[in-house]
Amino acid sequence: MNKTYTLGLDYGTGSVRAVIVATADGTQLAESTWSYAHGVDGVITDPKDSNVARQHPEDYLEGMKIVIQGALEKAGKNHSFSADKIVGLGVDTTGSSPLPVDEMGIPLAFKEDFKDKLDAMVWLWKDHTSYAEAAAITDTASKIRPNYLTKIGGTHSSEWYWAKVWHCLKVNPEVFKAAYTWVEHADWLPAVLTGNSNPKKMKRGVCTAGHKGLYHIEWGGYPETEFLDQLDPELSVLRATLPETACSLDEKAGFLTSEWAATLGLPMGIPVAIGAIDAHLGGVGAGIGEGVLVKNIGTSCCDMLVSPLDKVLPDIPGLCGIVPGSILPGQYGLEAGQSAVGDIFNWFMNIAAGEGDKGEAFKRLTAEAEALKPGQSGLIALDWMNGNRTVLVDQRLTGLFIGMTLHTSAAEMYRALIEAVAFGSRIILERFEEYGVKVDRVINCGGIPYKSPMLMQIYADVMGRTMELSASEQTAALGSAVAGAVAAGSENGGYDDFETAMKAMTGTLALTYIPNKKNKAVYDELFGLYKELHDAFGTESSGSDLYGVMKLLLEIKERTRN
Amino acid sequence: MNKTYTLGLDYGTGSVRAVIVATADGTQLAESTWSYAHGVDGVITDPKDSNVARQHPEDYLEGMKIVIQGALEKAGKNHSFSADKIVGLGVDTTGSSPLPVDEMGIPLAFKEDFKDKLDAMVWLWKDHTSYAEAAAITDTASKIRPNYLTKIGGTHSSEWYWAKVWHCLKVNPEVFKAAYTWVEHADWLPAVLTGNSNPKKMKRGVCTAGHKGLYHIEWGGYPETEFLDQLDPELSVLRATLPETACSLDEKAGFLTSEWAATLGLPMGIPVAIGAIDAHLGGVGAGIGEGVLVKNIGTSCCDMLVSPLDKVLPDIPGLCGIVPGSILPGQYGLEAGQSAVGDIFNWFMNIAAGEGDKGEAFKRLTAEAEALKPGQSGLIALDWMNGNRTVLVDQRLTGLFIGMTLHTSAAEMYRALIEAVAFGSRIILERFEEYGVKVDRVINCGGIPYKSPMLMQIYADVMGRTMELSASEQTAALGSAVAGAVAAGSENGGYDDFETAMKAMTGTLALTYIPNKKNKAVYDELFGLYKELHDAFGTESSGSDLYGVMKLLLEIKERTRN
Repeated sequence: MNKTYTLGLDYGTGSVRAVIVATADGTQLAESTWSYAHGVDGVITDPKDSNVARQHPEDYLEGMKIVIQGALEKAGKNHSFSADKIVGLGVDTTGSSPLPVDEMGIPLAFKEDFKDKLDAMVWLWKDHTSYAEAAAITDTASKIRPNYLTKIGGTHSSEWYWAKVWHCLKVNPEVFKAAYTWVEHADWLPAVLTGNSNPKKMKRGVCTAGHKGLYHIEWGGYPETEFLDQLDPELSVLRATLPETACSLDEKAGFLTSEWAATLGLPMGIPVAIGAIDAHLGGVGAGIGEGVLVKNIGTSCCDMLVSPLDKVLPDIPGLCGIVPGSILPGQYGLEAGQSAVGDIFNWFMNIAAGEGDKGEAFKRLTAEAEALKPGQSGLIALDWMNGNRTVLVDQRLTGLFIGMTLHTSAAEMYRALIEAVAFGSRIILERFEEYGVKVDRVINCGGIPYKSPMLMQIYADVMGRTMELSASEQTAALGSAVAGAVAAGSENGGYDDFETAMKAMTGTLALTYIPNKKNKAVYDELFGLYKELHDAFGTESSGSDLYGVMKLLLEIKERTRN
Repeated sequence: MNKTYTLGLDYGTGSVRAVIVATADGTQLAESTWSYAHGVDGVITDPKDSNVARQHPEDYLEGMKIVIQGALEKAGKNHSFSADKIVGLGVDTTGSSPLPVDEMGIPLAFKEDFKDKLDAMVWLWKDHTSYAEAAAITDTASKIRPNYLTKIGGTHSSEWYWAKVWHCLKVNPEVFKAAYTWVEHADWLPAVLTGNSNPKKMKRGVCTAGHKGLYHIEWGGYPETEFLDQLDPELSVLRATLPETACSLDEKAGFLTSEWAATLGLPMGIPVAIGAIDAHLGGVGAGIGEGVLVKNIGTSCCDMLVSPLDKVLPDIPGLCGIVPGSILPGQYGLEAGQSAVGDIFNWFMNIAAGEGDKGEAFKRLTAEAEALKPGQSGLIALDWMNGNRTVLVDQRLTGLFIGMTLHTSAAEMYRALIEAVAFGSRIILERFEEYGVKVDRVINCGGIPYKSPMLMQIYADVMGRTMELSASEQTAALGSAVAGAVAAGSENGGYDDFETAMKAMTGTLALTYIPNKKNKAVYDELFGLYKELHDAFGTESSGSDLYGVMKLLLEIKERTRN
């Protein structure tokens, strides 16, 4: 058998990456990344509204050319490689990150009239401008379509598709009207590469549709017109531009056009897999399976599990999504997560670095924090600086620090933040198990687990589980490459299904983090306090009156900023 | 009339100051300060126990020589001045700051056997090691002497005399037994200067005795033997070394000895006033009177009011002390306060300066914080990083920040801390008025009001009152000089009473801070939230379960540190 390769394209929040991996065993031959040109750290913000987070689609095409060229050049140094041995291509992106396009599938942001308009760009996953619409969708669903809510954890998030497009309709009807449809970044990119970007034939993946677009086979796909009409009849018009059926991950978006093949230096006609959310293909790249919780820990954290479609699965309150086939064909994809992890640490370094170098502050505070024992700081934090995704599904929550004295150090506060995300992680794990989804293994991936042994040990101690690490540090890109290999099929040097492909192409490191009993005991006690604060500030039913405090502070903040 | 002068000696937490002022109008002729040589910023700490805060009495004598000499040198440049025109001397110190002395009044810290022993030094006001004893004193009083509690706000603080000496008896009986008695810094220093440091004839001032030593004429002075026996019979033995009657501020500790006169370069035999707590003599220097609230804002804040002895005064829950004659003769002295103000800002600059210069961080964050509008940060803090003195009287409370997002800046957090101390101030003001002690004017003194116009404006906006500033920036030292002038009497170029002396020697600046209506409205709303958090975390009766959170965190902290 000739050696073959697949290419994975991975669009993150700040940059895009291409990897070329050996189909036989998943070995990464080459990698190349590029940071988006627009905005700060790849995100376009609005000084007048801290909820705004946008991206320019130009960065996606420009970045793709640069990183594929870069990866091919690096791979070319290996004399067994040549570009014609690439047999398939997969794409992952952030989500929900929809963009408005015209009837030809051209992004409005590419048009002269809209080119600098924030609302015509990609509404990045972490854009929270549409919190009011998200609440109204939840409210309407609870009245006329309660079954919708049981699949999405009880709440439509402001990070999701319908809240975002509805907010645009309200605040910028000009953009909304100029758009023929709105498409997820994960669907748009494969469509462009395969010449299928005409919205009438463009395929949409079940991963974004199901987890972010209220799509479910139970109610016939995207939300019913009767429901959308209650929000705004214009949304039913938009709904008519969406396909009846979303595609499973083992389907193809199409085949690479000759134009793109020439531009990118890739073989013409190779299959391009259906696009999916980075974290979900990261689950694939990390070796997800029944009983295997994959945690993709980066700026935020995505927790993923799968459960066979033929096994009865209860609705799990607070889970962002339970979608058939969204991670692996034949399995329910279960998604939970934390809206910020690395972002919280970065935020704190902005506070604690003063005018000094943030990287140096990271190093210094990490060394000091590592020397601390659990409980020693007397601090607890709530990790809600970007809201709470699971299990509260509430973007209108904010951060908290408690326990400071005049002796409290920056390192103690930093460690309290790490502990807080670990406690948040434990809440998610316990929620899964409480509803009968057992977790036998925890495999970590994303940027942070490799960079922070302290964080991994704290996770092990707080959750009382061994923490494993994915062998690949680029699980999303590897997952995309796996999808590319499945798209190619065994007849072209790939694989016929994900199970076989993952067995060959993924694995974990020998290094693991095992819970320390003594630390676990202290953290159990601290977790009790975390839970108390979590419930007091995060739920109306806690019996405390404090549920309103964070909300009212946000209201006052918005009122006084205008 | 010949021009006369008085000398004020002012012992703060980090340094000692001497001022020479004109008796006629309070004009300051010269000033000199010296930072204590021991410890960090004048405080000796213990890395193993963050509650420890001690000072070495050597610094008091050494510092006195240096600053008096310095002040005399400076004053000497004015040709109308000569040292023989100094007619009296007053002393203020921190408190309760007791030290153990032998039967000759020699501090144990001066003896070879004890010289490096932390427990033989001065137990500085902010030493909180004795929180358990403080709680036990409160508990015992509530059972057998509830009348004690009504005079001290319901709780004996760990900052006070009996808790401190009892803690020493428990943890270091060797030191306790070696001590003949324990004496407040405010009493010891005048006793030394006047040759009256023999404990059997040493005078004790009613200011420290009443506010910190459970002294009250209602129960015949210091606490009754029957009460102290319940705590530990050894405390009754100590009680027997204390005088029956404490002295009012218009009495004299004695007259300057010839030895000290020679050492210091002052006239022999001039009267030395009874010593008092710095904040209280600061009240005198700021022009305290009926309806005039004086706020002494520095590392911590002391709020003082007086009320005529012939007017019925209810017990005010949470007030640290209501003591006849403790601030002005013929008036009840009412003391309230916040355990940390400037200390909180300093703490935060330690966090936010990174490895950079703290002074620069102060400047930068002040400029940024000044540009913020009330409510704009979405933050609220609780100002309890050093516990809460009034109205909760609980050292086992800690700090809190709520409302942070990923966009929250260090300047926003800094401003939230300033707002928090302003809210804490408002709680105190409202408590006074709630119990019928009207506040017509607020005069601010201490270091911070002159340095931070932002803080003063926030205080005005939060409290809805005009903020005035004392004309003297060294009110405690000036108050000591006023006491020196009263000790001298009119026959020696001084005054016969405080009223006359204060009228001549004190005043306020033309600069005032007037409440901004719009800001006040926002702060009223934020104050509601502050109050909610204050009650939830600070009182058992709030109906929330969160009262235990800070306590348990402290318990875990102490347990895991050992």
